Parts: sequence; structure tokens; C-alpha cells
Amino acid sequence: MTKNPNQQNLKVIPLGGLGEVGRNMTLFETEKEILICDMGFRMPEETMPGVDYIIPNISYLKESKKKILGVVFTHGHYDHIGAIPYIIDKIWHPGFEFFASPLTKGIIMKRQEDFSNQPPVKITEVKNGSKIKMGDFKIEFFRQNHNIPDNLGIFIETPVGNIVHTSDFKFDSTPIADLPTDFEKIKSFGKRKVLLLLSDSTGAEEENHSLSEKTIGKNLEEIFQKAEGRIIAATFASLINRVQQIITLSEKYNRKVIIEGYSMKTNFEISKKLGYIKSKKETIIKSKDIDKYPDSKITVLCTGAQGEGSAVLMRIATKEHPFIRVKKGDSVILSSSVIPGNERTVQNLKDDLLRQKANVFHYKMMDIHAGGHAQKEELKKIIEILKPKFILPVHGQYSMLVAHAMIAKETGMPEKNIVVAENGQVINLNPDKIFIEKSRVPSNHVMVDGLGVGDVGEVVLRDRQMLAKDVMFVIVVAVDRQTGKVKGSPDIISRGFVYLRESKDLLKDTRKKVIEIVHQATGSGGTVNWSYIKDEIRNKIGQYFHTRTQRRPMILPVVIEV
Amino acid sequence: MTKNPNQQNLKVIPLGGLGEVGRNMTLFETEKEILICDMGFRMPEETMPGVDYIIPNISYLKESKKKILGVVFTHGHYDHIGAIPYIIDKIWHPGFEFFASPLTKGIIMKRQEDFSNQPPVKITEVKNGSKIKMGDFKIEFFRQNHNIPDNLGIFIETPVGNIVHTSDFKFDSTPIADLPTDFEKIKSFGKRKVLLLLSDSTGAEEENHSLSEKTIGKNLEEIFQKAEGRIIAATFASLINRVQQIITLSEKYNRKVIIEGYSMKTNFEISKKLGYIKSKKETIIKSKDIDKYPDSKITVLCTGAQGEGSAVLMRIATKEHPFIRVKKGDSVILSSSVIPGNERTVQNLKDDLLRQKANVFHYKMMDIHAGGHAQKEELKKIIEILKPKFILPVHGQYSMLVAHAMIAKETGMPEKNIVVAENGQVINLNPDKIFIEKSRVPSNHVMVDGLGVGDVGEVVLRDRQMLAKDVMFVIVVAVDRQTGKVKGSPDIISRGFVYLRESKDLLKDTRKKVIEIVHQATGSGGTVNWSYIKDEIRNKIGQYFHTRTQRRPMILPVVIEV
Repeated sequence: MTKNPNQQNLKVIPLGGLGEVGRNMTLFETEKEILICDMGFRMPEETMPGVDYIIPNISYLKESKKKILGVVFTHGHYDHIGAIPYIIDKIWHPGFEFFASPLTKGIIMKRQEDFSNQPPVKITEVKNGSKIKMGDFKIEFFRQNHNIPDNLGIFIETPVGNIVHTSDFKFDSTPIADLPTDFEKIKSFGKRKVLLLLSDSTGAEEENHSLSEKTIGKNLEEIFQKAEGRIIAATFASLINRVQQIITLSEKYNRKVIIEGYSMKTNFEISKKLGYIKSKKETIIKSKDIDKYPDSKITVLCTGAQGEGSAVLMRIATKEHPFIRVKKGDSVILSSSVIPGNERTVQNLKDDLLRQKANVFHYKMMDIHAGGHAQKEELKKIIEILKPKFILPVHGQYSMLVAHAMIAKETGMPEKNIVVAENGQVINLNPDKIFIEKSRVPSNHVMVDGLGVGDVGEVVLRDRQMLAKDVMFVIVVAVDRQTGKVKGSPDIISRGFVYLRESKDLLKDTRKKVIEIVHQATGSGGTVNWSYIKDEIRNKIGQYFHTRTQRRPMILPVVIEV
Repeated sequence: MTKNPNQQNLKVIPLGGLGEVGRNMTLFETEKEILICDMGFRMPEETMPGVDYIIPNISYLKESKKKILGVVFTHGHYDHIGAIPYIIDKIWHPGFEFFASPLTKGIIMKRQEDFSNQPPVKITEVKNGSKIKMGDFKIEFFRQNHNIPDNLGIFIETPVGNIVHTSDFKFDSTPIADLPTDFEKIKSFGKRKVLLLLSDSTGAEEENHSLSEKTIGKNLEEIFQKAEGRIIAATFASLINRVQQIITLSEKYNRKVIIEGYSMKTNFEISKKLGYIKSKKETIIKSKDIDKYPDSKITVLCTGAQGEGSAVLMRIATKEHPFIRVKKGDSVILSSSVIPGNERTVQNLKDDLLRQKANVFHYKMMDIHAGGHAQKEELKKIIEILKPKFILPVHGQYSMLVAHAMIAKETGMPEKNIVVAENGQVINLNPDKIFIEKSRVPSNHVMVDGLGVGDVGEVVLRDRQMLAKDVMFVIVVAVDRQTGKVKGSPDIISRGFVYLRESKDLLKDTRKKVIEIVHQATGSGGTVNWSYIKDEIRNKIGQYFHTRTQRRPMILPVVIEV
């Protein structure tokens, strides 16, 4: 039944993003060419001490370097662009092409500044409606709503048929700083015969339709209307649309905005410069000027809604921030959902803020956060519009891929046309058939072990084998929960780092330093933030060792509460 | 305005359960006497390696041992009774009295068998309507719905006025294996003038009314109706009512029931013996007989809904269980909510089960779990019925206590009559006034460091100061994610345990043992369960060291995925 019985097959190879949330990277491969979509990283799990990020394994690409045409980026979130500086130097060649929307490009280029020895990343800008040709692939970009502007889905004409990759998306008829979903455009793709749909599964376990950013805006406005003290709004720096909302509301309610946190500042600056965030010149003030305005005229927009140990909101809560303390009557908004694994930390953060008499608003109390991902209804709708012959659920935990497959089945797609695959599997596609090949490509975790935020410019990349052989320091410190004081002397256990007998001074000084760090972190009393202490020990002792020895051990802090 | 101006004040002292979930223990103290309510423990956080439980600090009680009248237990959950064997020997004296309902008593006495050197715990049975006198306290017990039968609230006549302690509770008009809430009884307390209400805050952040167990039953029945293969239902062993539901449904749908898991078996036996669980004699079969029945006639009722490393469901999922494997078409029911911090583990468990082609049902998909705690509407209602002069929110994270205080305020209680307190604070009460005293009693964590489930009979109790000085072993092992094989030789870092030079053999054998444990745990392939490997190393190496050296170090496994 195929038009051309000799036609080659196309291989779709997910190197990341299947069976996990983050680390998205997909290959489209013909006999002669490879097209890459996205190069993301993801955050490590708690079982991976000393690791900063997990990136895709590119051994397969290294072998076929010459076949690579280049990469198209769908949007500027780190789970889609974060791995670039760690892998591009290993697969780049002079013919390598890069395509991204202006905001995505802006975020990538700003980050590249932090890395040295990178090959030239010359990105061609594309936007809604742009058509490009890369080898045998013809690609058309189309606007998709998400929670960052300038997000693009891709329609790819390939030798075997047309493929649609949704990117991360949701349907939003009333978005913020963005246009509503262009259903006519999606319908037009449907008319052109879609052989395979790769679609975002992150929201596949959620019923109904995702919330519109406008609904969030209404709820946020309620808080602004009632707030008498300062508003401290924490969200992800990458949620550009949410950042815009908070700035717009602050302007409406005559509040100055203090932007705090490195990533928040950076993303604000890029987005502002490129016109994706709009704010009046006089709106933004510096944090040191906070006391020049009455509390009711201040908004602090910052990072740390996940209770991250070193982010701004945590530093405010633990009284470590140089200018900002929580006051009675402040309204603290945690405008993000909680990433699985962070629940306990966020709970502790909330409790600390409440103990300091703030009013705390979080997504469980009201809809002040919307996910950026299509839910059941939307996933069904895009299948119904595009009518793909085959579907490959991408982006999400295995359970989300399975839920997405169920949705596809409910739309009437035959089970054999629905492929639930895993990273490293080779999905073989021709006009008549889709199947998973027996052989796999390497897709295990590759880990990046830096010394945390702020140190990104010097991160050290090591794969896991290296890491297993690497030097390690276990620092055991007992801290009195009531007073925050260190009990006894910290214990240091090392492996492969220095000959301990020859380094008595170093160890002695390190013990002293650990005590200092703990006392600084527990500071003026109040509730002790254990994860912050651990982060501080990991970061500062790491830097300290590096200064004195030029080596970077893995630091494993064990803080025992006494 | 008081009737007796010379009247002494009463002190209410929470030793646990405030600002945390679990570890409930409260003191009611007059000048001459102390009455204790509950002695619970809670599970440790991830920052506490090697720790099994956290129990209340009883230093204050040790000082005033002679004043203690005894203890009343509200119900048989471990967050209310779990600390008994660790603290009773330190505060018991010959006049010490114990009161509990029959099921609570049954659970306590069964557990006491696992401990040696315990003082005699002679419990007097009480039930709904029982009235007792302990020193100057007159106590009346009343039935409260929860998710375990035989749960009792207490009405206490004290020298300063009447106090109601709700215990954990919810209002349920259609409970399972229990009677509906007796509102007339609660109203009668309201008429007797309640000076202080201590009320359960666990559900205070949840809107509306808790679900009835009957609703859960309906949803569970839907699964039973449709299931063609086996049903594997995992829940907490302590949710006796849920256990009953699953047995009843199995009988209705002609399924035999296999009960798996030590705690599940124990609780089933106690409850059955005391008449709190009803089942036909032929319903329960042994797991080794599983293949004698068609899949459609089998229910497995087991522990492990939280993805606990060594619980039955995890052993089934990782193919470690001697008789039970997941088959395509099995319906796996996770009938419990996810405890904060366990999200990632439960996600991995779900994914593993789905990869093995089971149908997985969890509480996010349908209401197959109901919390046992009153939500906003119910908390408001009990305040409105009892009309207490003062309220002290108990049981819950700080944010829950604050939410509960807001609810009290919404009922019209003046703010000064609502006390949000913390563990160790002394709440001073007289007929006119409630306030928190300046001095506190010790309430920091006390940790129990055993070697995990199954080893409970030999647990070693140490407080945190001890622990900080204790011996420690860090075991670093690199495991290949793809093959499950150990790469290289495991590394062992010790502190204070043995002189390493004199223990070469021990270390060599331990390394071998670690490799064995890992290979056994990764077994027949499939997805590697990292937390299970860590648990196994912690447990088995712990036991191994103990056998060889009679010492019990803290084992800190570091598993690195390669």
C-alpha cells in the first residue's frame, strides 16, 4: 500500500524525556541524516549526592557525528536547552545548524557566556510560520501556548511522511503576554496527513483542561487587592508569563518591584530586552532601597518557591538575606506547584514563614499556579484535530505515557498504532507500520557534578563511571536543634582526596570552617533550616577545598540534629 | 470572675504532635498530678540516616515521675502508641495506670511481646461511655470515627474546667465496620461547658468535608466489578476499616484473599480475634496456594502502598517475592494517600508496575482512599457544637495549626482565646485566661535507631547526642543501571567501628556481601529499585556486622548509578 515500496524507514530515537520529567532530547534519523530536537537536562534525585544535573547520553550521536544536520529548539526552558553546554562540544561540526525563536535564542546565548571552550553556537531565529529545510527534512514552526513565551511546535515533512512534535504545550484561549492557541493552523496540519504525532504527556494524568493564565491572574489580583503589607511573590524564573503578571499587577496597585535571585534577574533582563516582558521604567527598584517605600508599595519578585536551600525566598525565611526580612502582615505567594520530592521542604518553608507571621498563599489554597501542560481534554483534542496515523507519547514519567496512550485509545486509535517507548529505544517508522526495534542505543544517565548555583561557569562534567571513582568527603556535624550550635567537633571522612596524615592542618581548618558555616546559617535563632545548612556546607566547603587544593571532591554533608 | 479565686492553674504541655504529623503525646498537669494522653512516634525525615523512629523527649516527665497518674490512649495507630516500648520503662512506677479501648489494647499488647525488659503494661479496657477517675481528673470516653475502629475522644473534668480532646477524628455518617458519629453525645458535652478544646488539625488545610468510607467502598467495588485478573490491593496495615472493605468485596466477588506483610498479618489477626474484622473462614488462603485458583478468584491484600523498600508490594514489583509476580491484566490498587517525601518512590513503583503491564489504580485517579481526619467543615462544626471558651489546635504541621486557628476565628472565637503553640511550650489555663508560659520543657527529637522492620525486637534506643557520637559506616557502591551489576569493588569508609588494619578480612567479606546483596536485589533484570537496594544494604550489612562483631554501626549506603 505504500507509494514507494523501496522507501527507507525513519527512526525516532528519544535520548531523554521518556519515563522521566525533563532531559528532553529526540533524534529523527534517516539513512544519511540525523535531526535533533532539543537538548535538555533534568534535576538529580536525592539518591545522587553531589550531582547537579542529569544530561542525555550522546554516545550514539558521537558515533554518527557527521550525519547530524543540527538542532531545533522548541522553547527556552532548561529541560529543553539546559544540556547544550555539556554536549555541544562533543557533537558539533562546521555544518551544524541551530534554530530557535528569539527568546529561546536569547536565553541560550546568555547562558553560553558562562561556559568557556564552547564551539560557535550560531542560532538562526525562527518564529510562528517559519519554514526551513535541513537535509531531507522540511520543518515548519508553529506557535504553541506554554508558560514561557515564544514556544514553538514543529511540523516536519520527512521522507516517510509528516511528523508533528507538539513540544511542551497547552491550549490557552486567554493567555498572558502571548496570543491564544491558533486552532486554524493546527487544523491545517491535520489536513496535510500526519503520519506520526509526538505529544507532551506531562499532564496526561490530569483530568479536564489546564487552567488559563488569566484565571491565575484573577486569583493573584485578589491577593494584591487585600494585601496591606509587602507582597513577596516566589515563582520559577523561567515562568516568564507569571513574572509578567506579577509586574503588571504591581503596577496596577502602585507597588514598586524588587527582583531578586540570579536566574530571576537574568531572565527578566533577557525577556525585557527582547520585548517579552513589559514594565515601566520606574517600576523596578533595587533591594537596598526597600525601606524608602511603605510596605504597601512593595512587591518582591524572587526565586525559591520550591524551598530550594540557597534561593532568595529561603534566605529571606532564614534571615540570611542582606536587606529583606519577613514582617508580620507580609503576603508571601508561592506561585508554583511542588516538584515531587520537594513536598517536605516546601512544607517547612511555609511553616517558617507562618511562624514569622506572614500570610502564606500557595497553589493548594487557590489557583495561583497553572501547569504549562495540556491535560486530558486538550490531549484528546489535538489528536482529534491532527488525526495522526501513529502516536508516540513523549515527555513524562512512564505512568504519564501510559495515561496518554489510554487517551489516544479513547479517541479511537488502534492499539497497534500507539507506541509507549522508553529512552534509548529505536522507534522504526514507515507509512504503514511503527514498531520498536530490538537493539537500543545507550540512554543511561550522564551526570554533571558542579558545586551548585553560582559556580556554573566552572562546572565539571563527569559521567557516572568517573563519579564512582571520584574523591569524596563525608562531613558529619552534630547541631543542637534548640540553639543551632555545633556540638563537639565535626567529623571528616575522606576517600581518595588527600593523604590525611599530611593534611592535618587542612582538616583542622576545615572543621573550624564547618562550625563557622553552621553558626552563620543558624544565625539569629529561629527554626533551623537543615537542608540549607547542608547546601551551605556542600557549597562553601567545596569552594574552600578547591581554593586550597585545586581539587573538587564530592561533598556529602551528614547533619545530625541533637 | 472565677468561682474560686484561689484555684490553681492547669498546664497543658504537648511533648509532640504540634508542628509535625505524628509523635502525639500531651500532658495535663496540675500542681500535684500529671495525666498523659497518647505516646506516639513518627517516621524520620530523609536527613536522618539510620534512624527508624522519632519519639517524644520525656526528660521533663522523668523529673516528675511520681506525679504521673498514668496514660489514656485514644486509638491504636502508631503515631499515638508507637513510642510506648521506648519510654514506658523510664517513667513507669507501681501506681501507673493505663486505659485504652479493646482494639487499641490488643495492638499495644501484641507489640509489647517484641520487647524485653518492659515494665508491666496492664491496660484497663474502656469504651464509648466509660467514665474513670484518675486523681483529680474525671475522664469520659466517647466514640469518634477515624480510619481504625475503637477510636475514642476524651472529655476531662479538671479542677479548672472541662477539657475535650478530640483525638484523631472525622465525622462519618456511613462508616465501615463502625457506627456513625454520635452527634447527640457531642452536643451533650457542649451543654456541660467546655473550657478548652484540643482538636485534630491534620485536615485543617483541606476544604469541605472528609470522604466517607462508604464512598471509598463504592469506588473500590467498581474496580472489583471490572477486574479480570488478580487484584493486588496495598494499603496501610493500620487502616483496619479499609482492610475490612477489601475482604468484604473479595467475598462478594468470590475471590480468595492472601494477606501478605508482617504488620498486615498481625493487625488482621488481632482485629479478627477481637471481632473488629469479619471474614469467612474459607476466604483467607496462604500465598503459596496462589496458583491453585484462577487469577479472577484472587485478591492479594498487602503492605507497601507508599513504595516502602522492603514492603510486600515493592518485593512483588521487583520480583523478589517468593510466590507472587505481577502478571499482565492484574489490577493493583494503591489505597492510601502519599506521605510527603514519598512521591518519587511511589511514582517509581507505579511506573514499574505499569511496565509489567498491570492496571494501576491510585488515589489521584479515583477516591480509593479517604483520610481519617476532619476537614474544614467538620472542624467548624465541632467548635460550633462544643462552644469551647478556648481552643488549642493539635496534631499537624505548623501551617495546619494556623489554618485551624483561622477556622476557629471564622466561627467567631476571639483571637486571644485561640492558642497556636509548639511542642514543649507550656500552655497555662485557668477559667478566665489561657496563655503560653515563657519557659519551655525539652521537646527536641529523640531518635530510635534500629535495623528496620523485622528487627524491631532488638532495636536499640539512643538519643541524638549518643547517635552523633556513634559509629558509622559509609558504603559506596557503583551499580550499572542497565545490567544491575556492581562496577568495581564497593568502598567502605568507617568511623569508630573497628580498627581497619586488624579487620581486613571483615572488610573483604563485607565487600563481597555488598555485591551479593546488590545482585540479589537487582535480580532478574527489570527496572532497578535504588531505594530498595539501599534498604537492603542497610539492613543486611547491619545484621552481618552485628553477627560478626556484636556491634551496630549506623550504615550509610551511597549507591551510585553508572
